[in-house]
Amino acid sequence: MTTIAETTIEADPTVPVIRITRDFAATPEQLLRAHTDPKLFVQWIGPADTRARIEHWDARSGGSWRYASEGNGEVYAFRGCFHDVGPDRIVQTSTFEGNPEAVALETLRFEALGPGRTRLHTQSLVDSFERRDARLRTGMRTGLNAGYAKLDRMLADGTV
Amino acid sequence: MTTIAETTIEADPTVPVIRITRDFAATPEQLLRAHTDPKLFVQWIGPADTRARIEHWDARSGGSWRYASEGNGEVYAFRGCFHDVGPDRIVQTSTFEGNPEAVALETLRFEALGPGRTRLHTQSLVDSFERRDARLRTGMRTGLNAGYAKLDRMLADGTV
Repeated sequence: MTTIAETTIEADPTVPVIRITRDFAATPEQLLRAHTDPKLFVQWIGPADTRARIEHWDARSGGSWRYASEGNGEVYAFRGCFHDVGPDRIVQTSTFEGNPEAVALETLRFEALGPGRTRLHTQSLVDSFERRDARLRTGMRTGLNAGYAKLDRMLADGTV
Repeated sequence: MTTIAETTIEADPTVPVIRITRDFAATPEQLLRAHTDPKLFVQWIGPADTRARIEHWDARSGGSWRYASEGNGEVYAFRGCFHDVGPDRIVQTSTFEGNPEAVALETLRFEALGPGRTRLHTQSLVDSFERRDARLRTGMRTGLNAGYAKLDRMLADGTV
């Protein structure tokens, strides 16, 4: 039996933050690898009908990253810098290059739930509720779910 | 006659943001240099009774920085990554290493006011009002004013 894990997306009522929670059949180390090894990251990030391409990748505190996502004849590029890359936490900036004024500060936490189960907590902070709510209206759930389903399969088949 | 410019510090009522505004007898290019050239930055940053020391400095989009401020037998270290370094805007993360959980997303803008006058707009965003207000209670005004007064002198004597 396969249980598809649910992605929870919450908008904080008091600060312009989105909180995303998702459980994985993985250790924290595996989730860290999936988010920091470019060869792994590129295989799961993004919606189902897109292909990601790493443009720059230096996953350490003080490093930076850029990738492009291609699909349906469109290319979307994202970039940021890594403030912190630690065993249970990544803090990074993130910008969609189509709207470079909007910079998010993202914190990813890997919470061990028990043997082979880890909860990913993602917090995305921007400087206005308008920007936060515009992001929520992009239909982020579909893309997140598709990406995490790809990651589930990579964890199941031993790729990560 | 010397007019000491005023530093305005505002706490946004709706988002956990501090906005700092300060005018300088400088061009935007000079203010950018003062914030990106480590040999200049180290001479003005920090309170009057401290001495700064650059530990790491790579002021370009995707680079990172770290400096320590020494005074009264204490050492305070700060670090972050540069998300964007452009002619009229710097976007960076910033952490006081004594409290690494608290990461701020800082945006500096250099607004040309007229010949040789530029307004520095600094926005500092954190993920809670408690963190923002704790920062305000540190007496940041004294340190900012002292640092900017040093920068005024460096602009007046042609160092920048």
